[in-house]
Amino acid sequence: MNPLPIAEWLAAELGPVAPKAHRSKRSATPRYRLLYDALRRAILSGQLPAGERLPSTRELALDLKLSRNTVVTAFDQLIAEGYIVTLTGSGTFVTDRVQGQRPPIPKSALAGRRLTLSARGERLIASDPAITQEIQPFVPDLDDFSAFPVKIWQRLQNRHWREARSELFDYGAGGGYRPLREAIARYVSLARSVQVSPEQVLITAGTQHSILLCAGLLANAGDTAWVEDPGYWGARKALGATDVHLRPIAVDKEGLKPSLADLETRPRLIYVTPSHHYPTGAVMSLSRRQALLDFAGQHGAWVLEDDYDSEFRYSGRPISSLQGLDSHDCVIYLGTFSKTLFPGIKLAYMTVPPGIAEAFKSALYDLQRPGQMMTQATLADFIAQGHFATHMRKLRQIYGSRREILVKTLRPIIGSLATISREASGLHLLIELPESANDIALAALAATEGLVVRPLSTYYLGEHRRKGLLAGFAYVPTHEIARHARRLGEAIRRGMRSYG
Amino acid sequence: MNPLPIAEWLAAELGPVAPKAHRSKRSATPRYRLLYDALRRAILSGQLPAGERLPSTRELALDLKLSRNTVVTAFDQLIAEGYIVTLTGSGTFVTDRVQGQRPPIPKSALAGRRLTLSARGERLIASDPAITQEIQPFVPDLDDFSAFPVKIWQRLQNRHWREARSELFDYGAGGGYRPLREAIARYVSLARSVQVSPEQVLITAGTQHSILLCAGLLANAGDTAWVEDPGYWGARKALGATDVHLRPIAVDKEGLKPSLADLETRPRLIYVTPSHHYPTGAVMSLSRRQALLDFAGQHGAWVLEDDYDSEFRYSGRPISSLQGLDSHDCVIYLGTFSKTLFPGIKLAYMTVPPGIAEAFKSALYDLQRPGQMMTQATLADFIAQGHFATHMRKLRQIYGSRREILVKTLRPIIGSLATISREASGLHLLIELPESANDIALAALAATEGLVVRPLSTYYLGEHRRKGLLAGFAYVPTHEIARHARRLGEAIRRGMRSYG
Repeated sequence: MNPLPIAEWLAAELGPVAPKAHRSKRSATPRYRLLYDALRRAILSGQLPAGERLPSTRELALDLKLSRNTVVTAFDQLIAEGYIVTLTGSGTFVTDRVQGQRPPIPKSALAGRRLTLSARGERLIASDPAITQEIQPFVPDLDDFSAFPVKIWQRLQNRHWREARSELFDYGAGGGYRPLREAIARYVSLARSVQVSPEQVLITAGTQHSILLCAGLLANAGDTAWVEDPGYWGARKALGATDVHLRPIAVDKEGLKPSLADLETRPRLIYVTPSHHYPTGAVMSLSRRQALLDFAGQHGAWVLEDDYDSEFRYSGRPISSLQGLDSHDCVIYLGTFSKTLFPGIKLAYMTVPPGIAEAFKSALYDLQRPGQMMTQATLADFIAQGHFATHMRKLRQIYGSRREILVKTLRPIIGSLATISREASGLHLLIELPESANDIALAALAATEGLVVRPLSTYYLGEHRRKGLLAGFAYVPTHEIARHARRLGEAIRRGMRSYG
Repeated sequence: MNPLPIAEWLAAELGPVAPKAHRSKRSATPRYRLLYDALRRAILSGQLPAGERLPSTRELALDLKLSRNTVVTAFDQLIAEGYIVTLTGSGTFVTDRVQGQRPPIPKSALAGRRLTLSARGERLIASDPAITQEIQPFVPDLDDFSAFPVKIWQRLQNRHWREARSELFDYGAGGGYRPLREAIARYVSLARSVQVSPEQVLITAGTQHSILLCAGLLANAGDTAWVEDPGYWGARKALGATDVHLRPIAVDKEGLKPSLADLETRPRLIYVTPSHHYPTGAVMSLSRRQALLDFAGQHGAWVLEDDYDSEFRYSGRPISSLQGLDSHDCVIYLGTFSKTLFPGIKLAYMTVPPGIAEAFKSALYDLQRPGQMMTQATLADFIAQGHFATHMRKLRQIYGSRREILVKTLRPIIGSLATISREASGLHLLIELPESANDIALAALAATEGLVVRPLSTYYLGEHRRKGLLAGFAYVPTHEIARHARRLGEAIRRGMRSYG
């Protein structure tokens, strides 16, 4: 190629480079870029072979009717990236280090490559995806977060944005925004009997992150974790992703019930939801709590207490935390604002014993570089000024009445076909079915009606699976509940005739 | 104990329960709670043994001068938690399942427990904590994020909060907020020559999270990852936390330079910063890029391209991405808004080949339950309306001039004692020192002046360590740079006499 053909070929390649005035607004690609792309393609494909001399920028600008500056910019970029090189006095050449002519690897040779997920990755996606195990939807199209006091939140938030303190733009070291950690320490010690100082509180980006951090710092690959069966998919996914071996432990009406064989397994981690078992709602009895803490203390196991929604008890007081009973410093308490504020806020917290608090703060920063300090500061004010308590009272009232309408509507329709758990708490209802029922088919039937309920049997790892349907009611507008509850009840009745 | 002593003892215990009118505002603990706590303590300690009959709520209310309701609430709570039980017609008793008398485990028996970090956790915190390896500070007290257009951001953000769409309160499935993924796909394809469709883009909570996701899905425990040496601590921490074995690979002026021995190691992951090596700033040459891609394609290794700050080139155009050269679909491209907006925003992105996009979206949701949708929506508008491009131009101008002042001030002071890298890019400067220099002592000396620079040698895993100082300049106010740069220069000159 001599200069003329290069320019001609480029002119053809650059067809779309119309004069500036004629270019539509949408064609935002700068002209230097089009030239750069055309030259780069030619070099990579071997059309412009190594050692080829390029026309001068002046010549090329004239030939292509581009400004000299455009051509210089494209050349500079190609030089910076090593495609071409300028030798003073001699001109500009395609660099000889580019193996432009090397044949592409044939597709057949690629077939055997391991460019796939790892075995760990395959395991992770082999289990049911979370999106099919989230409970909240019951009538997903109606999701209602209107109880959240948006105006108050905006006012608090805008104040911090206006002040624009540097600290709130940066990452958050030391476990999170100090006033938020203080507010949380006060809240959990008062409301949940957690024994804790602000130094022991860490702000995380969600319970999943809290669990990942615990798995990384407290367990080794191959260690065993006890998980409840049925149980929370999120904990299993997080533990599995860090190669912790899961041992499912049965849960009955009094909570976790390890068998004698289980007791021989020496777990390193024990993940539990003692205040409100996920997803059945069982409350762990005091004797089970004490036995669990003794076992953990004696065998050096860490207990992860996930207190994900115990704020929502519509009669009586919240059950106290396991952490508050712990005299072995073996409990890590996990809480979240996903349920009390809104799911996407991505702020959660954990409390850790004093002896490991510094290690956890350091690892939190190392692995997650926590931020969202504007949101943390807004939330700290929201709690300190009493809005959180007000909001919780309001939510308990709203969700409690939603639950009541759902129960009252369902009960006469399903009659003795199924049992609705009495315990008035949480954000979803467990409709218990007889062992013979096919809860998966029932949930599929409800789905054809646009109603999303989850089959209890899919929350088990072990063989013995109780049957039931989990129906989230919290986010369905109150005045819509009865109508959809009737449809759900009818679907269950219809389904139980077919799949009962 | 008969009813009277219990009441007397409780009255003593409850000393602080003054009549309502006399209680100070700060004593927020409700009275039922104080009673509950006192009874619970007595039961747990064995003062009230199993089987003990409690006085009736009416008697106790009279004796303690509390309202009947207060006592009933406390009893209800104790019943709910299993401490006491009411037998109809007989009264209320301390439940016999509480092993109130069981001796506490002596501290000596606890000494041998493994209630400590795991070996994995110990490894994680044994390496330098991130907080000592973050480069940005140079004059930390002056951190300046005032270039960020707070008012525009607030306006866009408040619009979404006012609209309060349910979708923006929930978790984000499908890889993140669709319009943001589209905006990012356009941006990286135009600015970084990344070949990508919005379906391949995932929004994460930071580059650390992107790397953790890759390690979980693409590698198994025990697999090898190549990491640059010197290199980014964050990648090493994330890979180490998922038990990936790190192999440090030398980096020279042309980027990653594996030895023959390295080439025998069959890495599963290769983590690189080809556009602007962290922390030295080297740009990977085209021939190295091609060799790396060929090696990865042929051996089934995944390349993680971390393009953390390549937006910041103060002369010339940004270097194109490695991903854009990839014909093997083996590159995962990682970008972040931590540098272009502000660190704590906690929004980053990754692009993955089409064949694994669905698996990644599913795992992203399963492991991280992504949210912050209000922020994602605000950012999508910020980009689409051109504010991002304007902001980037402004930042390049500001940071470019900050860099220039730093270089011009330092150069005459340090003279031939050290070399300042010429390449005008990034957010920090590398001041290269002779092999004999003690960069750790020099950084410590600067720290005594309140100046934070990082010793290059601490970014190495291997034995061969170049010496230098890394000085972040981006967040120091422009008018303050010269003054502090002189102090830094003087400190280096002074230190080089002692430790050079």
